[in-house]
Amino acid sequence: MHFEKHVFICSNDKDAPKKCCGSGHGMELVEKFKATWAAQGLDTKIRIQRAGCLDFCGKGPTMVVYPEGVFYGNVQLADVEEITESHLVNNTPVSRLQIG
Amino acid sequence: MHFEKHVFICSNDKDAPKKCCGSGHGMELVEKFKATWAAQGLDTKIRIQRAGCLDFCGKGPTMVVYPEGVFYGNVQLADVEEITESHLVNNTPVSRLQIG
Repeated sequence: MHFEKHVFICSNDKDAPKKCCGSGHGMELVEKFKATWAAQGLDTKIRIQRAGCLDFCGKGPTMVVYPEGVFYGNVQLADVEEITESHLVNNTPVSRLQIG
Repeated sequence: MHFEKHVFICSNDKDAPKKCCGSGHGMELVEKFKATWAAQGLDTKIRIQRAGCLDFCGKGPTMVVYPEGVFYGNVQLADVEEITESHLVNNTPVSRLQIG
């Protein structure tokens, strides 16, 4: 395992009937997670990046955390600190945001 | 776990000193994997998609397979069937391509 946690956020933005994650704030989430982790010195252990469609269109913005394979939906900028502290640092997924 | 295997291929293509994966054939790999899996009925269990930089610039095209967190570098179109058969179906990573 190269990273302790590897997070992928859908940044897809296609012209689809169901709203795409990228048309929300996927990239803003990526930037906020990165800034939060850098401030806490977590950025060498945890990596986040944009990805294509995670197959949960309509529940976006969506993200997945590996190696656990935990999916989150409707993730807001206000959720970044809770996901970081609870799940990424203390291994307790944030159940109210889980999907799949 | 929503997918038995979730594969991410770097499709980044920035103007960087070290050649970026996307400037190789990242998206061609995505298409070939998808076609290979569809032909074998694997496409509901295994998912692949483009992702941002996986942090192995210069070793591209790179990909990572979760939940194992196995990284591959210098992946060629000719490697698609071996990775599928050996790793994704039979859980034996292709050691000659592993990095990280």
